[in-house]
Amino acid sequence: MITLLGGSGYVGGAIRKALDQRELPYRSISRSELDYYQPEKLAAWLQESETQFLINAAGYTGRPNVDACESDKCNCLNGNAILPGRVAEACKEADIPWGQVSSGCIYTGRPAPGEGFTEEDEPNFSFRKDNCSFYSGTKALGEEVLANEENVYIWRLRIPFNELDGARNFLSKLMRYAKLLEAENSITQLDEFANVCIDSWVKQIPYGIYNITNPGHITTRQVAGLITEHGLAPHEFSFFESESDFMQKAAIAPRSNCVLNTDKLEAAGIHMTPIEEALHQALDNWVPEAS
Amino acid sequence: MITLLGGSGYVGGAIRKALDQRELPYRSISRSELDYYQPEKLAAWLQESETQFLINAAGYTGRPNVDACESDKCNCLNGNAILPGRVAEACKEADIPWGQVSSGCIYTGRPAPGEGFTEEDEPNFSFRKDNCSFYSGTKALGEEVLANEENVYIWRLRIPFNELDGARNFLSKLMRYAKLLEAENSITQLDEFANVCIDSWVKQIPYGIYNITNPGHITTRQVAGLITEHGLAPHEFSFFESESDFMQKAAIAPRSNCVLNTDKLEAAGIHMTPIEEALHQALDNWVPEAS
Repeated sequence: MITLLGGSGYVGGAIRKALDQRELPYRSISRSELDYYQPEKLAAWLQESETQFLINAAGYTGRPNVDACESDKCNCLNGNAILPGRVAEACKEADIPWGQVSSGCIYTGRPAPGEGFTEEDEPNFSFRKDNCSFYSGTKALGEEVLANEENVYIWRLRIPFNELDGARNFLSKLMRYAKLLEAENSITQLDEFANVCIDSWVKQIPYGIYNITNPGHITTRQVAGLITEHGLAPHEFSFFESESDFMQKAAIAPRSNCVLNTDKLEAAGIHMTPIEEALHQALDNWVPEAS
Repeated sequence: MITLLGGSGYVGGAIRKALDQRELPYRSISRSELDYYQPEKLAAWLQESETQFLINAAGYTGRPNVDACESDKCNCLNGNAILPGRVAEACKEADIPWGQVSSGCIYTGRPAPGEGFTEEDEPNFSFRKDNCSFYSGTKALGEEVLANEENVYIWRLRIPFNELDGARNFLSKLMRYAKLLEAENSITQLDEFANVCIDSWVKQIPYGIYNITNPGHITTRQVAGLITEHGLAPHEFSFFESESDFMQKAAIAPRSNCVLNTDKLEAAGIHMTPIEEALHQALDNWVPEAS
């Protein structure tokens, strides 16, 4: 039996869908049912329910975007840095392995021309580099809190997308924003991410940090081009002149744009669809949101 | 009526003593009586009890010293960064002013030769400067969480001491450590600190951040000299060769050594004893811990 925290969120919802499709037994528990910020309560639940694996997809992302975290710092810290530590305590107490949904948004750029950040690279978009959004700062702290924990997977997601139009989908965001920021990024097909989380445990890959992004990298202009090519562009795309133009006109907190190396997951025997192919699949099967 | 959180701690105990001496009505509440990390519970208590002012002296310091925070990051973040945010929510809900016991340990050195850090200076010993202990990082984050709050005092304490020998007293530490680190610091007479917290509210000084240290600055060698002069040196004092020698041999996390400017508190009409005089008073009236 798997216990899922944060099942009502965007990522948690995709994990539920994947668990349903794979007919794996699980319970998605909400914070109102069980205050899982209290390790002793969560540990008791894990023991009573005979949970074998826990997935923590709960966290604080900010709505409609990360800018919202700048004015809700306490909840952001609590969801992204405290909760992973609390869950770690509970899982240690109940003696079960688990996984944390983390984020690749703790990096900016590339470590060297042509390369992506590996799981060994220190976050470079974090409080410690004093260059980040409050959101990214708390996500990096969350990984720091878990640094010495055993029996835990840390799954780093980056800019999720799939074929289902919606406010959290990267493709929908590009279609909806009036103006875009050109940047090069690793991105993650959400349903593949969900299956990788499950496979980590099913296939018993080694514990530790994994970058879970579709192999390759892509620019905003390239994605906009693919959207246009699929006849899904609502208007001609226009771009900010520069990142500073974007920061001045449209954002409060700086954004993470980065490329991650995906060799570790590959070496563990889990393969994801190359980035352009995954984008084509999503756009080929696009389901517009009911309006 | 004043509500005090953290009354069982070293600083909270001094605040209780000062409130008792001044015969001010207060209730010191423990976390087992009331889970004050839950804003709605704390707000309800504040309203029912007709609290007029709250003092939050609860936090996480690490025992026997800040090194302990490095291996208990989640609790350290929770006590020092989340709790101030939660208390702020509750006090806003209950519409009462309050004060947070903070720390001057978010600075290192001096801002310029001969000067001390003012309340306007950004912390320079923090996660954002990537040079700090985990403890100092969380204390600086705690101030960041409160940055836009109104009706709150942020009282910065530095290296507390008084005449009562004990594990948390700076003078006792110097007497007990085998070897000392030479450094220049602002320090705080604990009972004066407690009275300043109370006076902030009694005298209705403007809300905001205050450095609460005894005017002046002092080196470890000077304090050791005063201890010897008062016949209280247990042995001849010896010193580490350098900060790196100290870090190699005796510490895990870097320590904050810094000088703070105390003009703001003075300008608000609250006067503290000059540093050397305060040290003489403590050593003249020294009460050894019962062994």
